[in-house]
Amino acid sequence: MTHMSDLSFTHLDPLGRARMVDVTPKEPTHRRAVARCKVNMLPETTAAIVNREVKKGDVLSVARVAGIQAAKRTSDMIPLCHPLLVGAVSVNFEVGDDFVAIEVHVDTVDRTGVEMEALHACSTAALTVYDMCKSADRGMVIGELALWEKTGGRSGVYRRADGADGAESAAGDGAAT
Amino acid sequence: MTHMSDLSFTHLDPLGRARMVDVTPKEPTHRRAVARCKVNMLPETTAAIVNREVKKGDVLSVARVAGIQAAKRTSDMIPLCHPLLVGAVSVNFEVGDDFVAIEVHVDTVDRTGVEMEALHACSTAALTVYDMCKSADRGMVIGELALWEKTGGRSGVYRRADGADGAESAAGDGAAT
Amino acid sequence: MTHMSDLSFTHLDPLGRARMVDVTPKEPTHRRAVARCKVNMLPETTAAIVNREVKKGDVLSVARVAGIQAAKRTSDMIPLCHPLLVGAVSVNFEVGDDFVAIEVHVDTVDRTGVEMEALHACSTAALTVYDMCKSADRGMVIGELALWEKTGGRSGVYRRADGADGAESAAGDGAAT
Amino acid sequence: MTHMSDLSFTHLDPLGRARMVDVTPKEPTHRRAVARCKVNMLPETTAAIVNREVKKGDVLSVARVAGIQAAKRTSDMIPLCHPLLVGAVSVNFEVGDDFVAIEVHVDTVDRTGVEMEALHACSTAALTVYDMCKSADRGMVIGELALWEKTGGRSGVYRRADGADGAESAAGDGAAT
Amino acid sequence: MTHMSDLSFTHLDPLGRARMVDVTPKEPTHRRAVARCKVNMLPETTAAIVNREVKKGDVLSVARVAGIQAAKRTSDMIPLCHPLLVGAVSVNFEVGDDFVAIEVHVDTVDRTGVEMEALHACSTAALTVYDMCKSADRGMVIGELALWEKTGGRSGVYRRADGADGAESAAGDGAAT
Amino acid sequence: MTHMSDLSFTHLDPLGRARMVDVTPKEPTHRRAVARCKVNMLPETTAAIVNREVKKGDVLSVARVAGIQAAKRTSDMIPLCHPLLVGAVSVNFEVGDDFVAIEVHVDTVDRTGVEMEALHACSTAALTVYDMCKSADRGMVIGELALWEKTGGRSGVYRRADGADGAESAAGDGAAT
Repeated sequence: MTHMSDLSFTHLDPLGRARMVDVTPKEPTHRRAVARCKVNMLPETTAAIVNREVKKGDVLSVARVAGIQAAKRTSDMIPLCHPLLVGAVSVNFEVGDDFVAIEVHVDTVDRTGVEMEALHACSTAALTVYDMCKSADRGMVIGELALWEKTGGRSGVYRRADGADGAESAAGDGAAT
Repeated sequence: MTHMSDLSFTHLDPLGRARMVDVTPKEPTHRRAVARCKVNMLPETTAAIVNREVKKGDVLSVARVAGIQAAKRTSDMIPLCHPLLVGAVSVNFEVGDDFVAIEVHVDTVDRTGVEMEALHACSTAALTVYDMCKSADRGMVIGELALWEKTGGRSGVYRRADGADGAESAAGDGAAT
Repeated sequence: MTHMSDLSFTHLDPLGRARMVDVTPKEPTHRRAVARCKVNMLPETTAAIVNREVKKGDVLSVARVAGIQAAKRTSDMIPLCHPLLVGAVSVNFEVGDDFVAIEVHVDTVDRTGVEMEALHACSTAALTVYDMCKSADRGMVIGELALWEKTGGRSGVYRRADGADGAESAAGDGAAT
Repeated sequence: MTHMSDLSFTHLDPLGRARMVDVTPKEPTHRRAVARCKVNMLPETTAAIVNREVKKGDVLSVARVAGIQAAKRTSDMIPLCHPLLVGAVSVNFEVGDDFVAIEVHVDTVDRTGVEMEALHACSTAALTVYDMCKSADRGMVIGELALWEKTGGRSGVYRRADGADGAESAAGDGAAT
Repeated sequence: MTHMSDLSFTHLDPLGRARMVDVTPKEPTHRRAVARCKVNMLPETTAAIVNREVKKGDVLSVARVAGIQAAKRTSDMIPLCHPLLVGAVSVNFEVGDDFVAIEVHVDTVDRTGVEMEALHACSTAALTVYDMCKSADRGMVIGELALWEKTGGRSGVYRRADGADGAESAAGDGAAT
Repeated sequence: MTHMSDLSFTHLDPLGRARMVDVTPKEPTHRRAVARCKVNMLPETTAAIVNREVKKGDVLSVARVAGIQAAKRTSDMIPLCHPLLVGAVSVNFEVGDDFVAIEVHVDTVDRTGVEMEALHACSTAALTVYDMCKSADRGMVIGELALWEKTGGRSGVYRRADGADGAESAAGDGAAT
């Protein structure tokens, strides 16, 4: 029988093994993150949302609640994301001709940032919009889900560059200012 | 004291009130859905993923597990989504020069479709990729999250049209064939 | 050493030991339940709700979403309650001078009834009303939470007797008709 | 195409939009809350509970565990309720001739109070009592669920007035002393 | 830009990629599983459990509730485990001189077996015993967690061989009869 | 009618009633725990794991993710376990001829220890190994699940004695050094 001890505990896969990195040496500080995304849809669908004619209910108010609740449960869904206690969440919408844009703000006082909470709230709100409108418009596309701002923590302030908004430059130049 | 009875139970907001629509009259049938999305990122980031050099662990294998688990818990996160028991889930990846594409297949035998499960698994896998790579590349953008195929149920087969892939026609022409 | 075997596995506490009773011999049938409760509050509070002046948001639309989500997760919270897949949930409100009354309907096709789902949705919607209004009115009281109707299953139809509404006969005569 | 920017992000529904209010500016302090409710039932039902003759198991010990677990998961169920870490929970019972009364105490050190945790634990314990006894007594009514005491935080001490106990004055005069 | 299509969707890691295998072609049938484990402890600890002198509460009744609830949430915790609706769960104990043995029975009617539900309930009950007694006995060891019986489904009946009980032959000869 | 008041609230079962003990008087300090267990299996099964030939996927990488996620949700599953925010989790494996050994490290800064988090992660990783390999080897046994180290908090350092490793002395002499 092979004995297990502090010395002999060798690791099968030293490269690429997942772990939740240690945040205990950090001090809790105020953190904030802002994320955005868009649900692209038919003009008839945005009209139905604005006129509250969607059969399943008031789309934006349900999506807002879904986003807030998702922010609280981010670490349940994202495996290596640290659990934390969100201190404030707001979810807002802008309705264009053929899209609903979603913006989420999350604040906390903790040892780790709230980017994932803001992004998770944003995508859950977007999926809720999809779910409520899908019987009329299956071709909706969720896109441009990105971090727009992050403050607090040792890495300083991050703000997404302006030109990064358009689909034509979605990934490349989203560098921190 | 105002009495509550079957007759007097009037409703404050008859329009726009959310409800989970009744699926009990439907028969359980085999359902399948396919969803896709893309995480756009720096070429250095895709290289780190492929070479398993990301510090938090093997990105794609963690994202795959996250997607599978998310499929099972979709109705927890999306308020009006019916609970159902997923019977099969697979999550696959394609790594391009500056993106990771994700494709999810979900099957079930139930009274309602699995579009939301496939989309939710896709977005959770994408958020997991973001979470694991974010310290090196905060500008990543998740996009093109869409339903690609849906079979089973009374509404028949849905397949996303080919040209709907590119960002320039993201929403409009995603009509069923 | 005491050996464990099929014969010797005696039970420390044969009386009163909790178990989830077996529903597998039953056939799935259509089931429905209706539950109601009341949140008693100051007239100023009902006015604020109706006029949508509560600072935390639109009380009834958030409470409705909370109730629907709670229906889905009843067996998570009530230890001996069987898990089931709810097929329809609706949450409705009546606002009186000094109360908000809540009524929940739940339907399913399953081996066990949905009374607990309806009651749990009702109480969660009521607690959400409390949470959103509590900074202005800590004295709110949730009451009269009861099953009003239950159909399907071997025990037949149950309908709460009319006089059971008033607080003065809250428990005694709520017999099945 | 409508562009989304910090300036143009206008909000569709400025009134009544739900949000989780910001508690990050507050300091963590010791907080406590006490909540109570009653499950009204037939005398035969209280007798069965006390004599541990209820077929599903020992009602009060299961309800106590359910209440404790519910306290921990309050923010999962109540959409705008802040997540926090409960530091102590106790659930106690008084059995009368035709009721079971439940009292819950919750303590924490946090930026926000634990009223909702105490109320949620109370109602979940009550629903568990209902669930375990319902096959014999469907007419049970849960009532008088209210906050009885709250200490800690800027709003100071709240204690429910004594006369607020009886059903005849359930809502109106539950003012803070 | 690399296009994603049905044909070109090649997979980075064809070997070893996790997926939830498809159970939709199977018919629902009655399934049962029995699992067992032991918590080895000091004789003083078993005495305290039997005499209900453990400060945190009645150990076995809390562990029983924990086991039942865990059975319901198995697929939440075990990534590739299919979700299913448990139809019956019972958790029983045998207290020896220096151990508590736990046995769990789970039944369902579904397309997949309930081994994992029985094992998960068993280990959660054991961990609850550990949690409640740990301040007095940190050296407790949970062992011999194994499947004892499995019926239903295409693979037929499995019964653990008798000699597999003792610790000295824990793994090797647990072959199906 | 029996009135409920602060004075008359007597308790039915003063002995053995479960409660979550109060940790609010303690100061948050750095805590760490290490737990281990073993999954005993056929040599063919360890070979299949190492050679990544298990049909359900790469066993150790899925089990690692399962363990990390379980650490975060320990207080959801163990009724009297305090909720806390884990700050670091790692899960490692050693593969022997006929077993997989699992070791979990958990760190936090909190008012209570992380023993249960480490043990829960360990057992969930072990159950995931079982789940992924069970179609080929139903006789696997999970054993030797124990706390190996605990630091931080008022009770000081605990380290499991060396001889406690072997099955022959599993429980008795696992005293703190």
